[in-house]
Amino acid sequence: MDLLFVTGNEGKLAEARAILGEIQGIDLDLPEIQDIDARKIIEAKLAEAVKTQPGSFIVEDTSLYLDGLNGLPGPLIKWFMKTVGNEGLAKMAEAFANTGCEARVVIGYADGDGKAEFFEGSFRGTIVPPRGDNGFGWDPIFQPEGYDKTFAEFTQEEKNTVSMRRIAFEKLRKHLVINR
Amino acid sequence: MDLLFVTGNEGKLAEARAILGEIQGIDLDLPEIQDIDARKIIEAKLAEAVKTQPGSFIVEDTSLYLDGLNGLPGPLIKWFMKTVGNEGLAKMAEAFANTGCEARVVIGYADGDGKAEFFEGSFRGTIVPPRGDNGFGWDPIFQPEGYDKTFAEFTQEEKNTVSMRRIAFEKLRKHLVINR
Repeated sequence: MDLLFVTGNEGKLAEARAILGEIQGIDLDLPEIQDIDARKIIEAKLAEAVKTQPGSFIVEDTSLYLDGLNGLPGPLIKWFMKTVGNEGLAKMAEAFANTGCEARVVIGYADGDGKAEFFEGSFRGTIVPPRGDNGFGWDPIFQPEGYDKTFAEFTQEEKNTVSMRRIAFEKLRKHLVINR
Repeated sequence: MDLLFVTGNEGKLAEARAILGEIQGIDLDLPEIQDIDARKIIEAKLAEAVKTQPGSFIVEDTSLYLDGLNGLPGPLIKWFMKTVGNEGLAKMAEAFANTGCEARVVIGYADGDGKAEFFEGSFRGTIVPPRGDNGFGWDPIFQPEGYDKTFAEFTQEEKNTVSMRRIAFEKLRKHLVINR
């Protein structure tokens, strides 16, 4: 049965392929429901994805959770970026006197029956005023624990060594090896 | 053709009925997509609603937009309430040195063909530290322009006189009178 990764991002597809081997990218425009629980959002997408064609599907979510905001923005990060941006997020962390945060990739996997299983990779870190020009999105304000650089100050090579996505995909790979 | 208001809230249904006359409530659990534009969210709900049965459908959204946050939380207000709550929202307004805001009800109407039309009622106001015990949700932090009380300090009778929902429904009523 085909293994299909729902993404329009070639970089993410390459990262998944390096770990899972034979995998196809499929650029479906699936509805994204409102929730701060990434699993609920992924579950709803997988339920739609399995209707489109036979196969096993993978859906991925990358989110940033601020300790001081009790889990916001989480999967709603996109709307924070569009409105207040990195400066605004850093200002919020400061106003709530808590710069602790977690960056988390969740991968959902569903074979033909549509039942989702989840695999995660995460890093604890600190929200800092924006620094650095590499990467994208909230990379400039996320400084992972144990480093004095933000993700936007990492080189691509350095970033590969701390990939949350790779960790999540490794977990999925082990699951597939055992269950197939 | 039946006029169906998608809501599980008897108070909102009564408010709509007082203006539109014959109208039925229907408690559909429609998927709520991520967006900070209420119209997009309503449009997606109406597209699903018209599939369930013949009729004309009404979907309503009530949101709070903070000037300092460039439109956040807007229709994502539910997740802000669940995480940082009224105290957190007031703290954000303060941190961004801008307590201006707008409370807005948007009503979407679609007859059988599913094409949505929109009708709005809104109030400008100020975000204040929580005060008052009436109402619900963000009522304690919303002080409408021209008043020295928050919505949570209004009596139900006073609140009826400043209903954004009524304004929006009146606009829909005029539209239906002209077009039916």
